[in-house]
Amino acid sequence: MPSTTYPQAAIDKMLAAIQFDTQGLVPAIAQQRGSGEVLMMAWMDRNAVVETMRTGRVCYWSRSRQAAWRKGDTSGHIQELVELRVDCDGDTLLVEVEQAGVACHTGRHNYFFLGIRDGELTEIAPIEVDMASIGKD
Amino acid sequence: MPSTTYPQAAIDKMLAAIQFDTQGLVPAIAQQRGSGEVLMMAWMDRNAVVETMRTGRVCYWSRSRQAAWRKGDTSGHIQELVELRVDCDGDTLLVEVEQAGVACHTGRHNYFFLGIRDGELTEIAPIEVDMASIGKD
Repeated sequence: MPSTTYPQAAIDKMLAAIQFDTQGLVPAIAQQRGSGEVLMMAWMDRNAVVETMRTGRVCYWSRSRQAAWRKGDTSGHIQELVELRVDCDGDTLLVEVEQAGVACHTGRHNYFFLGIRDGELTEIAPIEVDMASIGKD
Repeated sequence: MPSTTYPQAAIDKMLAAIQFDTQGLVPAIAQQRGSGEVLMMAWMDRNAVVETMRTGRVCYWSRSRQAAWRKGDTSGHIQELVELRVDCDGDTLLVEVEQAGVACHTGRHNYFFLGIRDGELTEIAPIEVDMASIGKD
């Protein structure tokens, strides 16, 4: 399935609906199409929203690197855009994606692999990919 | 199915893994068990994490009201805790829940009901409940 792209007029309408925070960022939840798996939450700035909608490749703003982050550029584990939605008060995005490979830089399929088991914080998902061999991103 | 509660020792381990932001908050994504529907994203402070894990009723911190927010106290649309997970760098929570009624104060089942259709920002989910009749929360 080809990734979804949006015309500039639609991008402008989405931007107008988003309430960016005081740092110019909005949280974006990436969810796998079909399975509904929540892959990750990261942040988008205005430019990341525009790039994501214009190109169909999901982009974020890396707060740790303070840089634009086109997911998968290093690892090849890209996210193709299926649909971008915004919530009722405009302060959170839901990004429906088609994830290539794994979402997490630890090699797990999603970021949320820490849960309580037998009273201990435990890794509950397997490492699927040795990310050291392909480069993190 | 009864909601999940955690003993104090497990709560302490979860708290130690969470990186609260400079305002003492962490984003929490609520996902419906089974369907995988992403219902909402809201914020938890330390006390909301404790209350959620101790009681099995999902609680947040309302930034707009600057008050503790036990989801559903007004509307009856409570969230029962199934599992609380934290992501790899500790700065986002995934809360698997059993949602009673609807999650959104607009009466829609989830918050993310605005998407682009025919180039326009469009409400893509129906209003299921007249919230005016039961009280928002």
